[in-house]
Amino acid sequence: MSLPESIQNLIDEFSKLPGIGSKTASRLVFYLLNKSDQEVAGFSQAVANLSKGLQKCQICFNVSEDNPCNICNNSKRDKSKIMVVEEPLDVVAIEKTPYDGLFHVLGGAISPIDNIGPDDLRIKELIDRIKTEKGISEIILATDPSLEGEATAMYITKQIKNQNIENRIKSNIIVTRIARGLPVGGDLEYADEITLTRALEGRKEYD
Amino acid sequence: MSLPESIQNLIDEFSKLPGIGSKTASRLVFYLLNKSDQEVAGFSQAVANLSKGLQKCQICFNVSEDNPCNICNNSKRDKSKIMVVEEPLDVVAIEKTPYDGLFHVLGGAISPIDNIGPDDLRIKELIDRIKTEKGISEIILATDPSLEGEATAMYITKQIKNQNIENRIKSNIIVTRIARGLPVGGDLEYADEITLTRALEGRKEYD
Repeated sequence: MSLPESIQNLIDEFSKLPGIGSKTASRLVFYLLNKSDQEVAGFSQAVANLSKGLQKCQICFNVSEDNPCNICNNSKRDKSKIMVVEEPLDVVAIEKTPYDGLFHVLGGAISPIDNIGPDDLRIKELIDRIKTEKGISEIILATDPSLEGEATAMYITKQIKNQNIENRIKSNIIVTRIARGLPVGGDLEYADEITLTRALEGRKEYD
Repeated sequence: MSLPESIQNLIDEFSKLPGIGSKTASRLVFYLLNKSDQEVAGFSQAVANLSKGLQKCQICFNVSEDNPCNICNNSKRDKSKIMVVEEPLDVVAIEKTPYDGLFHVLGGAISPIDNIGPDDLRIKELIDRIKTEKGISEIILATDPSLEGEATAMYITKQIKNQNIENRIKSNIIVTRIARGLPVGGDLEYADEITLTRALEGRKEYD
């Protein structure tokens, strides 16, 4: 039996999403089939309206309704810190922590396999911010603890250090990297050896 | 930071879907944010069009573009067998097997916890089919091997047997239940004891 076209269409669309295979997609579609027309229309509208009124902040490149975004524009934030992240979703995650500095969204990580080089990311824009914004004391590299994220962090560090040498006035900016270690609530015996090595390297005096 | 409204809206909509929590929902929404307007519009349209032109087959209650559906209407199908399933998605699964009989979609299973009784399912309609359709020799109960599915199968069997007694002419209809046992490709040591018990009960002579 071939499925009705409208059902197959939506299964195909769901299957394009990350982490959703054809079985999950079918399950979602048949779930929606049991919902009222109104609920399905609400979903459709929410998708259609997704990017309406959204733009990229021209300072930090986060998605936002305003430009500059409400983080860059917030006078209460600590403007001496810029946290560099890969994606807007990373900003959402960090915003649940006490961090109250600024952000810079790269738009990904350096990945030769995916043909993404430094010029495809907003690294140049970060260097420009470091050159022009006043009062920056720390750049926190919070790219993913993956091969790509580490390579990106390393590349950015080099670029900033070059800038520091060229512009002596800026040489008081420190570059930090978020700690790699055991996730809270995790189980030591299940941790991989690289994570354990990093956790040991990052150990601190217990007080 | 509160998320832009359109993003939060779509996260809320995705979170309503089964098996999708708020983290997965965020990931899907930010994935869509990176897609072109055209691709997002395609997705939105597929959702909006989902139930357009779809109806429930008035014989088997499967979702279909036609009424009766293309299974009930297919003269090549074996009309002596009716397989009783809970959901349209079950029909999709069975259609990948060599089964070539008819279906009857109940619309769920008896579940007192969810306040679903026999009258909320299309059991009466099944009994009507058994009474009126000619040449039926077997009713295959393919409800889920869950508590609810088993209860539903048991209830339907009783109903059909009552009918058989009332209408002696129909008493040659047999009622079967799909086998419960070890899933193919599975691992015996991981099977639960109820599945193992069923697998033993259902053993057949090896030939």
